[in-house]
Amino acid sequence: SEHNERDVSDWISLNVGGKHFMTSRSTLLKEPLSMLARMFADENNLYLMNPSVKDGSGAYLIDRSPEYFEPILNYLRHGQVILDGNVNPNGVLEEAKFYGLDSIIPQLNKLIEESTNQQGKDQSLT
Amino acid sequence: SEHNERDVSDWISLNVGGKHFMTSRSTLLKEPLSMLARMFADENNLYLMNPSVKDGSGAYLIDRSPEYFEPILNYLRHGQVILDGNVNPNGVLEEAKFYGLDSIIPQLNKLIEESTNQQGKDQSLT
Amino acid sequence: SEHNERDVSDWISLNVGGKHFMTSRSTLLKEPLSMLARMFADENNLYLMNPSVKDGSGAYLIDRSPEYFEPILNYLRHGQVILDGNVNPNGVLEEAKFYGLDSIIPQLNKLIEESTNQQGKDQSLT
Amino acid sequence: SEHNERDVSDWISLNVGGKHFMTSRSTLLKEPLSMLARMFADENNLYLMNPSVKDGSGAYLIDRSPEYFEPILNYLRHGQVILDGNVNPNGVLEEAKFYGLDSIIPQLNKLIEESTNQQGKDQSLT
Amino acid sequence: SEHNERDVSDWISLNVGGKHFMTSRSTLLKEPLSMLARMFADENNLYLMNPSVKDGSGAYLIDRSPEYFEPILNYLRHGQVILDGNVNPNGVLEEAKFYGLDSIIPQLNKLIEESTNQQGKDQSLT
Repeated sequence: SEHNERDVSDWISLNVGGKHFMTSRSTLLKEPLSMLARMFADENNLYLMNPSVKDGSGAYLIDRSPEYFEPILNYLRHGQVILDGNVNPNGVLEEAKFYGLDSIIPQLNKLIEESTNQQGKDQSLT
Repeated sequence: SEHNERDVSDWISLNVGGKHFMTSRSTLLKEPLSMLARMFADENNLYLMNPSVKDGSGAYLIDRSPEYFEPILNYLRHGQVILDGNVNPNGVLEEAKFYGLDSIIPQLNKLIEESTNQQGKDQSLT
Repeated sequence: SEHNERDVSDWISLNVGGKHFMTSRSTLLKEPLSMLARMFADENNLYLMNPSVKDGSGAYLIDRSPEYFEPILNYLRHGQVILDGNVNPNGVLEEAKFYGLDSIIPQLNKLIEESTNQQGKDQSLT
Repeated sequence: SEHNERDVSDWISLNVGGKHFMTSRSTLLKEPLSMLARMFADENNLYLMNPSVKDGSGAYLIDRSPEYFEPILNYLRHGQVILDGNVNPNGVLEEAKFYGLDSIIPQLNKLIEESTNQQGKDQSLT
Repeated sequence: SEHNERDVSDWISLNVGGKHFMTSRSTLLKEPLSMLARMFADENNLYLMNPSVKDGSGAYLIDRSPEYFEPILNYLRHGQVILDGNVNPNGVLEEAKFYGLDSIIPQLNKLIEESTNQQGKDQSLT
């Protein structure tokens, strides 16, 4: 599908491991020192990185897990760390480290600790 | 794919965070003061907002979670708040706040409270 | 993608809330008084309804949940009500009512009752 | 998308209920008397069936559940019956019967029996 | 969609059982004696294998489970074995064996053992 680049200049399409995500540039810039912010910052940003190449549809290619990227992107949208019951928080932690999202890491470590405690209790139930 | 805009004028395609949803305009207008109703209301609506830009397929772009939008859209369709067992109600609450769907918030708060109580009981099981 | 309408005349593509389903006309006609049967019945059917408009790919548009439509469609295929462990049976019940599939409703009500009982027992476990 | 039929002649695309699967002909022939083997066998096979019509992308149309087809296809690939925790084995059983995969049915019946026993124990826990 | 092959020469698209994955060549080369490394190694590699044919979009076809390939690919990206709560580790083990990823197998066997122990305890709970 063809995109009208002028109308959607503040929208960024990401191809994370084969899955497409649409988000705004302002969402990706939320945490200024993160890799995502540095990839999509304007040229005055001291820490500017070159974004990766685009796929055929114009989406920036990122070689990471799409599943665990979803709560990362939601966190940038509204500031909450929200995981569904079956999602392994260790998977989200690996992505947080990769993208350099330092502010989310303490909350993920807390979720991992709680989940480990719960498993221990389940396993000692008998 | 090409759409015949005249035949489907009461159908609206949304691109929420990279996932496409199809719904009718009447569904989106269900709660008149919500952001969705104001985006797709007719011109006589006092609270009319400009909808966001469209992607290349004609879908309105919304920079939010697609997963947690699904129960929101189902609620507009039939008036029930229905979440699957693994879905975190906090995720749906964030979307309800964003879209300004005030009527759904008390039910979500009740689900969150029940889920927190249940976790507390699970954790004190030993 | 282009479809050869003559070769696939007994196949029907549905766009339910943004997700595409493929099924045969005979599956949709299984329960004669249901909305689906009436939408896709031949012209001699007394209760014939006009099907909804089609999207750009030729799929009939239906403004409902795709997730909860899946067990509905499987039920029409083989007559069994089969839900995965994390699926909320209330979601399937709303769809059954919408599509007018009366024969499935008692089984769904039974599943809902069992699931409510189980939750009550879980919550009184301590 | 266009396929080079000569290069991929041993690859078969299936459209099961609206979802596309790619597999090799040899995988589909694993259980010779099954419906899948008979649909894609060579002309010397006594039990040869005509495969169904193709959709616009060249995939053979099958009017069945895509979700429960996945473990069926994995079973043909490596001979193991592997279901995720939330998957209802009754759903896979219905597909095994439909496709005539007799060798998988005893293992599925065992999984269904174990799952029913476990539910009974859960429900009598108080 | 058309790809600019020169800009994305270090990106590889895989069609695993019908689902597309995007990853970098360097990720696939992580474990040198694995099948994936041998398929995408340069010509000096002694163990070079011919990769499979491509689909119409240029993705290499692999006749295996897409679901259980995801944690395999994440493991190659960051070295951690991370499974969600509902994922059957036996499914991932079958893929690890197929792709010849020997280094991941002991960790998967440990997960399978823990999961079997836990089920035994659940079943003897009454």
